Amino acid sequence: MELYRSIERIRETKPLVHHLTNWVTIYDCAQITRSVGALPVMAHSRQDAVEMVGIASALVLNIGTLDDELVDTMVLVAERAKELGTPVVMDPVGAGATTPRTEAARRLLDTGAITVIKGNAGEITTLAGGIAEVRGVESMAAEGADSAAKMLAKEGHVVAMTGAVDHVTDGERTALISNGHSLMGEVVGTGCMSASVIGAFIAVDPDPFEGTVNALASYGISGEKGAEGSPAPLDFKSRLIDGMASLSRSDIDMMKVER
Amino acid sequence: MELYRSIERIRETKPLVHHLTNWVTIYDCAQITRSVGALPVMAHSRQDAVEMVGIASALVLNIGTLDDELVDTMVLVAERAKELGTPVVMDPVGAGATTPRTEAARRLLDTGAITVIKGNAGEITTLAGGIAEVRGVESMAAEGADSAAKMLAKEGHVVAMTGAVDHVTDGERTALISNGHSLMGEVVGTGCMSASVIGAFIAVDPDPFEGTVNALASYGISGEKGAEGSPAPLDFKSRLIDGMASLSRSDIDMMKVER
Amino acid sequence: MELYRSIERIRETKPLVHHLTNWVTIYDCAQITRSVGALPVMAHSRQDAVEMVGIASALVLNIGTLDDELVDTMVLVAERAKELGTPVVMDPVGAGATTPRTEAARRLLDTGAITVIKGNAGEITTLAGGIAEVRGVESMAAEGADSAAKMLAKEGHVVAMTGAVDHVTDGERTALISNGHSLMGEVVGTGCMSASVIGAFIAVDPDPFEGTVNALASYGISGEKGAEGSPAPLDFKSRLIDGMASLSRSDIDMMKVER
Repeated sequence: MELYRSIERIRETKPLVHHLTNWVTIYDCAQITRSVGALPVMAHSRQDAVEMVGIASALVLNIGTLDDELVDTMVLVAERAKELGTPVVMDPVGAGATTPRTEAARRLLDTGAITVIKGNAGEITTLAGGIAEVRGVESMAAEGADSAAKMLAKEGHVVAMTGAVDHVTDGERTALISNGHSLMGEVVGTGCMSASVIGAFIAVDPDPFEGTVNALASYGISGEKGAEGSPAPLDFKSRLIDGMASLSRSDIDMMKVER
Repeated sequence: MELYRSIERIRETKPLVHHLTNWVTIYDCAQITRSVGALPVMAHSRQDAVEMVGIASALVLNIGTLDDELVDTMVLVAERAKELGTPVVMDPVGAGATTPRTEAARRLLDTGAITVIKGNAGEITTLAGGIAEVRGVESMAAEGADSAAKMLAKEGHVVAMTGAVDHVTDGERTALISNGHSLMGEVVGTGCMSASVIGAFIAVDPDPFEGTVNALASYGISGEKGAEGSPAPLDFKSRLIDGMASLSRSDIDMMKVER
Repeated sequence: MELYRSIERIRETKPLVHHLTNWVTIYDCAQITRSVGALPVMAHSRQDAVEMVGIASALVLNIGTLDDELVDTMVLVAERAKELGTPVVMDPVGAGATTPRTEAARRLLDTGAITVIKGNAGEITTLAGGIAEVRGVESMAAEGADSAAKMLAKEGHVVAMTGAVDHVTDGERTALISNGHSLMGEVVGTGCMSASVIGAFIAVDPDPFEGTVNALASYGISGEKGAEGSPAPLDFKSRLIDGMASLSRSDIDMMKVER
C-alpha cells in the first residue's frame, strides 16, 4: 500500500495495536501509536492479554524488561495471534546481551507467529546465530549483519534492521531507508517506538514488507522534521512523536527509500 | 467545598494520595498529583500498599495493566481504606473489553469501599450491567450511559462519566461539566490523570460529589488554558499538568458547571 | 577525579549503568543516564539482572516500587556486584514510611555491597536507626540527620543526603553542595535521577566520594541552568535532563562545593 494511503487508513480505521512491552518506554509506545492514528492497548497478564489480542489488529512484543512469566505469556499470545492471522512485530531488545533475552527471542521466533523482527544489527545477528557484541541494549558492532538479516528473513519473516540506514528485507525484496536523524540515537525509546509504528502500519497493510518500509520511512521523516532547528533531545522526542500525528501528503515527498 | 478553597486546602495540607495504578501512565499520575499540590505515592506489593494506605488521605485504584496478584492486593487495600474511612477512586480502565478487567472492577465495587467511580461511557455502562462496545481501553459507543451512571450511583457511589461533557452524579445530585478541550482526547493518560486529581480533591473535601465536580472542572480549565495557541499533543500534555500548579482564583471563573 | 574530566570519561567510555528501579521514574532514569553520556540498562528478572551486572560498570538499586521478589533479586545482584568489584548506588525510596521499605533498604545494606547511599534526610535518618517522619516518599522531618549520615558513613559507605544543600560524607571527608534549584522539588523523579547520575560518575571514578560530589554538583548545575527564565515544572524537567548532555567546561565554574 502506498505510504500516505496507509496513514489515511490508520487514521480512518483506528486499528487496535496490542502491546506486551517493557516498563521503560511503555508510555512512549502507547503515545506514538495514538499519534499515528491507531489505538494502543497494553495488557500483560495471561487471560487479559489473550483476550485482548482477539480484538486487536496487530500485536507488538518487546522483551526489554522481560521475566519468565511475561515471556510465557508472550508465547501464548503470539500463538493466539497466529491462529487469528493477526500480524506480530517482535523487538528482541538486548538479544545477545544475556541468555534470557536471547532465549526469549528464539522462543518467540519458534512460535512461527512473528511477522516482523525489528532490531539493531547486534540483535539481528544474534538471532541469526552469528556472534555480535551487544552491551546492555545497545549494539556496538556486528559482523555480516546484512547477510544475517537475509538469513532470518528466509525463515519467513520480514526483518527490519535499524540503524543510520534502515535495512528491510523479506528474503526476496530489500529496501534501504535513509530517512531519520542522528538525534534519534540520543533519546531512549526511539527503537521501541519504531516497533509500535510498524504495528500500526501492518495492521492495515496486508503486505508486511511494504507496511514495515512505510512505517520506518514515515517515522524517519517525522524525525527529520522534528530535528529542524536542532532541539534538545527530549524536545526532539516530543516533536518526533507529535510529528506522526501531523504528517501530510507533501511530507511524504521526503521519503528516501532505495529498493 | 468551593473550588478554589479546595485547591488552597490541597496546597496547604499536601495530602498523601496513594495509587495502585497501571505501568503506562504511572509517571503522569504521580506528577499531576504533585502539580495539584498533593503528595503522590505508588506502592503495589501487598504489605507495602496496605501500610501506605494507613498514612494516605485518599486512594486511587486503576486496573489499566492489572494482573491477578495486583487485583487481590487492590481488594485488600480497598478494604483497609474502608476501615479507615479513607476515600477511594476507582478507574475501571477497559472494563467491558476483557473478562479480567470487568471482573476486577466488579470485585473492587463489591468491597463497598469505592467512593468515586470514574470511567468513560463504555466502562460505566459495563459496570451497570448494560451493553457497551469497548475497544481496548477506548469507549466507542454506549447505550443509555446516563441511566447506567445513575443506576451505579444509587448503590452508594459518586459516578463520574467523562467525555466531551463530564457527567457526575451521586444518585440525587447531578452536575454536567463542560470544561476541557478536545486535545485531551489525543494524549494517552488524560483519563488516568483525572482520577488522580479527583483523589487529591476528595482527600480534602468531605463531600465526594463536590470534590469530584471541582476536580474535573479544574482539570478541564487547565486543559482549556493549556490548549491556547493549539500546541502539539505532548506539549499540550505538559501544559495540562503544569497548569494545575498555577491555577489561580481568577482561572476558576472559567468553570462551566450546570447542575 | 576532576569534575569535567569525569564527564569527558563518561562520554568517551560510555559505561553501562545497570538499574533495578521503580516503575514511576524508570524512563527518566534511563534517559538521564544516556544524557550524561553513559548507557542505561534496566533488567529486573533474576537471571537477566545477574548476567547484566556482569557487563555493567555500575549498578543502581531503587526500592520505590519494591515487591518481595524484586528485593530478593536486588540482594543477589548486589552480591554479584560486590564479587565483581562493581560500585553500587542505593536509593532507599520511602525507607521509614513502611516496614517493607525500611527492611529492604537494611537488607541491601547488609550485603556489604552498597558503595553510595543516596536519600533524603528522613530516609538517611531511618537507616541510621534514628527517628524521622517520611510521608510516602517525602521526608517531612528528621532529627539529627547530619550525625545520622556520618554514622552510616562510618560503616563504609559514601552517604549522600540530598536537600536544598546536598551533604556528602564518607565518614572522614565531607562536602556540602549548594548547586541546584527549588524547581527540582516540584517534579517527580529528580531524586531517582540523581542516583542514576551518581551511578554514571562512580562507574568511571575509582573514588566514589569524589564521584558522588561531582555527580551532584553537575546535576545541580544543570538544574540551575534549566531553571533560567522560570520554566513550568515539566519544561524544567526536560531541560534538567537535556542539560546534562550539553554541560561544558565553563559551566563547571558554577560549582558550589564547600569541603
